[in-house]
Amino acid sequence: MLRRSLRRFAAPIGGLPKTWVDQATKELKTIKPETLVVQTAEGIARQPVYTAEMLKQLPVPALPGQFPFTRGVHATMYTSRPWTVRQYAGFSTAEESNKFYRQALAGGQQGLSVAFDLATHRGYDSDHPRVVGDVGMAGVAVDTVEDMKRLFRDIPLDKVSVSMTMNGAVIPILAFFAVAAEEAGVTQDKLTGTIQNDILKEFMVRNTYIFPPEPSMRIVGDIMSHMAKCQPKFNSISISGYHMQEAGANSALELAYTIADGLEYIRCAQSRGLTVDDVAPRLSFFFGIGMNFYMEIAKLRAARTLWATLLQKLFQPKKRESLLLRTHCQTSGWSLTEQDMHNNVIRTTIEAMAAVMGGTQSLHTNSFDEAVGLPTKFSSRIARNTQLILQEETEIASVVDPWGGSYMMEALTAELVEEATRIIDEVESKGGMTKCIVEGLPKLRIEESAARKQARIDSGKDVIVGINKYRAETEAAMDVLKIDNTAVRLSQIEQLTSIKASRNALAVQQALEAVNQACRDQSKNILETAIHAARVRCTLGEITSAMEREFGRHVASGKLVAGVYVPSYVRAKKTKDSDKDVFDHIATLREAFSKVEGRRPRILVAKMGQDGHDRGAKVIATGFADLGFDVDVGPLFQTPQEVARHAIDADVHVVGVSSQAAGHRTLIPQLIAELKQLNAKEVLVVAGGVIPPDDYEALYAAGVSLIFGPGTPVSTCAFRVVEKLLAQRNMAFPDVKI
Amino acid sequence: MLRRSLRRFAAPIGGLPKTWVDQATKELKTIKPETLVVQTAEGIARQPVYTAEMLKQLPVPALPGQFPFTRGVHATMYTSRPWTVRQYAGFSTAEESNKFYRQALAGGQQGLSVAFDLATHRGYDSDHPRVVGDVGMAGVAVDTVEDMKRLFRDIPLDKVSVSMTMNGAVIPILAFFAVAAEEAGVTQDKLTGTIQNDILKEFMVRNTYIFPPEPSMRIVGDIMSHMAKCQPKFNSISISGYHMQEAGANSALELAYTIADGLEYIRCAQSRGLTVDDVAPRLSFFFGIGMNFYMEIAKLRAARTLWATLLQKLFQPKKRESLLLRTHCQTSGWSLTEQDMHNNVIRTTIEAMAAVMGGTQSLHTNSFDEAVGLPTKFSSRIARNTQLILQEETEIASVVDPWGGSYMMEALTAELVEEATRIIDEVESKGGMTKCIVEGLPKLRIEESAARKQARIDSGKDVIVGINKYRAETEAAMDVLKIDNTAVRLSQIEQLTSIKASRNALAVQQALEAVNQACRDQSKNILETAIHAARVRCTLGEITSAMEREFGRHVASGKLVAGVYVPSYVRAKKTKDSDKDVFDHIATLREAFSKVEGRRPRILVAKMGQDGHDRGAKVIATGFADLGFDVDVGPLFQTPQEVARHAIDADVHVVGVSSQAAGHRTLIPQLIAELKQLNAKEVLVVAGGVIPPDDYEALYAAGVSLIFGPGTPVSTCAFRVVEKLLAQRNMAFPDVKI
Repeated sequence: MLRRSLRRFAAPIGGLPKTWVDQATKELKTIKPETLVVQTAEGIARQPVYTAEMLKQLPVPALPGQFPFTRGVHATMYTSRPWTVRQYAGFSTAEESNKFYRQALAGGQQGLSVAFDLATHRGYDSDHPRVVGDVGMAGVAVDTVEDMKRLFRDIPLDKVSVSMTMNGAVIPILAFFAVAAEEAGVTQDKLTGTIQNDILKEFMVRNTYIFPPEPSMRIVGDIMSHMAKCQPKFNSISISGYHMQEAGANSALELAYTIADGLEYIRCAQSRGLTVDDVAPRLSFFFGIGMNFYMEIAKLRAARTLWATLLQKLFQPKKRESLLLRTHCQTSGWSLTEQDMHNNVIRTTIEAMAAVMGGTQSLHTNSFDEAVGLPTKFSSRIARNTQLILQEETEIASVVDPWGGSYMMEALTAELVEEATRIIDEVESKGGMTKCIVEGLPKLRIEESAARKQARIDSGKDVIVGINKYRAETEAAMDVLKIDNTAVRLSQIEQLTSIKASRNALAVQQALEAVNQACRDQSKNILETAIHAARVRCTLGEITSAMEREFGRHVASGKLVAGVYVPSYVRAKKTKDSDKDVFDHIATLREAFSKVEGRRPRILVAKMGQDGHDRGAKVIATGFADLGFDVDVGPLFQTPQEVARHAIDADVHVVGVSSQAAGHRTLIPQLIAELKQLNAKEVLVVAGGVIPPDDYEALYAAGVSLIFGPGTPVSTCAFRVVEKLLAQRNMAFPDVKI
Repeated sequence: MLRRSLRRFAAPIGGLPKTWVDQATKELKTIKPETLVVQTAEGIARQPVYTAEMLKQLPVPALPGQFPFTRGVHATMYTSRPWTVRQYAGFSTAEESNKFYRQALAGGQQGLSVAFDLATHRGYDSDHPRVVGDVGMAGVAVDTVEDMKRLFRDIPLDKVSVSMTMNGAVIPILAFFAVAAEEAGVTQDKLTGTIQNDILKEFMVRNTYIFPPEPSMRIVGDIMSHMAKCQPKFNSISISGYHMQEAGANSALELAYTIADGLEYIRCAQSRGLTVDDVAPRLSFFFGIGMNFYMEIAKLRAARTLWATLLQKLFQPKKRESLLLRTHCQTSGWSLTEQDMHNNVIRTTIEAMAAVMGGTQSLHTNSFDEAVGLPTKFSSRIARNTQLILQEETEIASVVDPWGGSYMMEALTAELVEEATRIIDEVESKGGMTKCIVEGLPKLRIEESAARKQARIDSGKDVIVGINKYRAETEAAMDVLKIDNTAVRLSQIEQLTSIKASRNALAVQQALEAVNQACRDQSKNILETAIHAARVRCTLGEITSAMEREFGRHVASGKLVAGVYVPSYVRAKKTKDSDKDVFDHIATLREAFSKVEGRRPRILVAKMGQDGHDRGAKVIATGFADLGFDVDVGPLFQTPQEVARHAIDADVHVVGVSSQAAGHRTLIPQLIAELKQLNAKEVLVVAGGVIPPDDYEALYAAGVSLIFGPGTPVSTCAFRVVEKLLAQRNMAFPDVKI
């Protein structure tokens, strides 16, 4: 209805008076005013100017703190208390991370947000052979309750709120947290903070699940039950759109799938015997904030509106709190560039402003060096200062919902509500998110959105300053935080050994048995058994294994989007100087290759270690396929041995390793050694993702053929790969260049 | 009228419904909702939330491109053409600056903006003894038309628009520009750009005037006449509020005095026989954009509204163009900090967003290192990228006047219009700006505003991140661009000598005589005679001298604001631990000093060289006087010899040198040598302002006692100075510490 009334203005500047159209026509000279209407990725026709007239059919928005909370969940918002500065951090050992947290709190940070390493996420202890490259790299390693205690040493857990990004291994981690607090004298009812525990989006985009969807939802239910009873001040789920945006979703998809996930969690709680009012007040949300400034503000306003409206309609809660969408936001990691890194300070500032103007409850601002690695002390301070400057030096926090009434903002908000409602209705009509995820449609939709975006960037239609336009001649060198992965792992193993030697073996065995038992018995609460297991020093890996015995490990299917990249690429007009473009050049080389080899170039796109960020790998796979390669996509979470075996079995010419989580220094040299050992040293290994330039030399020395930094167009990667394949065969095409 | 209708809501949350007040009361617990209403520096009562109800008595704002242009001067604004990225730059020689400009244009800059050195501003050739420390330091040195030709070598002046910040020596500079273009084959009618030529604000705040107010206005009139006839595409004045903001004016003062200046220039043009439509379309404006995000956007909207309304009312122009306030903006230099410099990237991004959301026509974004010196190539790129990222990576430029309709923004705009109208009416009732300036009230108002602001910062009420809160333990070292001042001066002198040797001496003499003649004859046009003088290679100093013979040089009076700093300082509550604050400690030391000396400590606050930026000096003088010092304020533009003489005549204990323009390396050592020579080596020399940390060692070696970096509270300076005076007398007070 809103949509229809707004759409009336969409096409030929329908809502603007003739006086404006006449003046605009004069200013534009050769083009027509209609061309100023832009179709956004969300499918919204953005007008060049918005007017009071356009909003006539929309109701005047309710005041902040009033249903449906478009203008804010609280009446006074930041005017009484600003948003919480909550920076996501964690690396190396618990001691190191603890030191970092305490410095951050002293420097003005207001809440903690823990990043765990990928081994922990996936439920492996640090001594597991699958996690050799992952321990302590992209987060802190936590194997036992002792690590958790060290992590929060000298931090008062009854005063500082703690957010933990954990989904797969959420049971042992929550158990360790409760017991660490308990042993520091803080009872569970005093704990404040948030556990991510949003397993649905893991199956869609982030891939740090452990168990299949159905038992995973059982776990979520157990956690909600336990928290409703014992941890009333702790948010039991942080329903996350952030990772959808990072994976390439546009704002409407991110908004709709996130809200739909939330509805599914309430139903899950109901199936465990809880009421909407038992759980809804302790659900929080988590959105990504990218560079589409207006759209991101509208997204947060729309999210509150949708949540309140749908909760009211579907669940009729009795508590006002159940209707309030409270959210954490994080600036976009995707929008950061490795090139001319200081530009990232600018980007993060813009995004942070959108988040707070949208009315977020807490915020993480990225450090400018996160495109290449973990933040340093210096870059962390600048990231934190971004928020402190907004809070303290501007009057931005002094007015609630400053955009309220803006013709544009109210129109965008209403349009996003309508667009997201359409997508949510589709999900609901198919039986809810769990079913849709098993079916796989949301994942494909997001991957399609990502491939389209990449093609627009690669072809220069979407500009990224310093990457595909205004590239700097020279780069300022920057320090990067390096983790000595081997040292961390050895120290973790030592502690594991010592704990295992000193604990009561029988108690451990019984506790693990009880965890396994609870998995089989819906009337038991798995988290409660795990808390007991944590007390007797069971490890994260042991608790996970006890559950895995019942639930099994989930393996994702490998569907691939096709035919999106090339059609979305805006090819340059051919000129006299160059009647060929990069696609033509790739085709020339690819055909030369096919002539000598008798088949097309074949690439295995591989992910190793516990790094599940597969947007890059998926985009590369889709793009290469569209550009005429035969493409194999390997499963996630592979060892170097498994990838080498796959490469030989599939008889590929190239393995492309996508690394987003710093495991490359360990895993890629192992892969090359493995290929050699299997007499397949002619298979080229190329690498891309988040790889700091400092690592290039070591990787080349280990035998990597090509390394592609962030921002390299897929078309350039494809060209270089086939060029390299020809060079390997002593064939040179000096006239074919890009 | 608007004001009254808005003020209705000011005090006890009058405009907000009971439901909101009730909810707010619940959220606030111990305080009342009324306390959320904040009185801004502009005297506006800012509400915590704005509503549709509050705007009921305001008219719906007209569309962009329609009178009174609140929503923008053009119908399509950035949707058809984004704002112009115009970075202000210039340093060293014309060759060096030319190289810098051409790199900037290649890197995405869209127009030029020339910074001249202070010698040029004040009408002195580079060989003049008064400018030894100034040549090439804060801008480029231009002595003759040959320098101007080198400055624009290989830059097509018929395509690239050029803005020139020149007020005092505007006649020779415009003459050089016209002749340089002419000799490159570009006739005057093809030139696009802007000359600042805003002499009124120089008398208020910036002090780079040469002649007294009345002949200065005669010069402005001649320029407008000439341009109306010969340079129809060139803006003849850039009416500048920027420097008022930098000097400490709040938004209402900046807005009102700038508009009032504009009205005065139109009257000046009328007195030269021009009509409003001859000149108004070629007046442009220039505003500073600081950290008050909402207020700054409202300021630009209010400025357009006021200008159109007043022009219509006072001058009834026939051309639509006469009503349009077109403006350049610059982010605030004042808001930059030397400490933790990267924070400046954040600040500049926020300010840049306010400027473009306010609808500026062009923008300069400061480099993050400008608090300590001239930008480097790297910092310039990041500054430029700030704008390019806003233009190309966000959709911020895709909607005209995005804030249109926002309850808050429309209310703030209306309130600023009313507040500025009140100030403009006051000016008009006193006979216009020239009269007010001669009388001196605007200057004092701005200085008072600056002293209040400084006191709020020094006492920690206003926060600056990294300065008075969240200070970093360690600083990242940064490169600073260094100018070899002596080399630049010698090279300029060499070129002057060579030009003087090769030109036609008789033609020069006749041309200068004609310039002088024109000054005496109102029917002649001074600029036209100067253009001829430029053609025959008269120098900037010669043309200025020819004018000075008739007009004389202006000397400002030295009134000082008193009794503002201490009352505006929010003193800390006394606690058991410390029942004394910094004021008490200063008093203790000051009294000890008076006891032995028989009089209060006496300081001469001095400005040397051609640097007229006196906000810092004025704030220090006001603060020190309030803190019990006897204060002498020296005249502007002194030589080291003159300052030493003054110090001895006034029998001061300390000379405080304020340096904002990089002359300190040359001038301060000369001052110390001079004091020694006059047997006054016991007079301490302390320094403050924009002094890069790299220069500290050399200055201390030369005998400077104390150096205060930007951000040092005035109270700290006063404490350290009196402590040093006591140490000089071998008196120590170890228990009195701050």
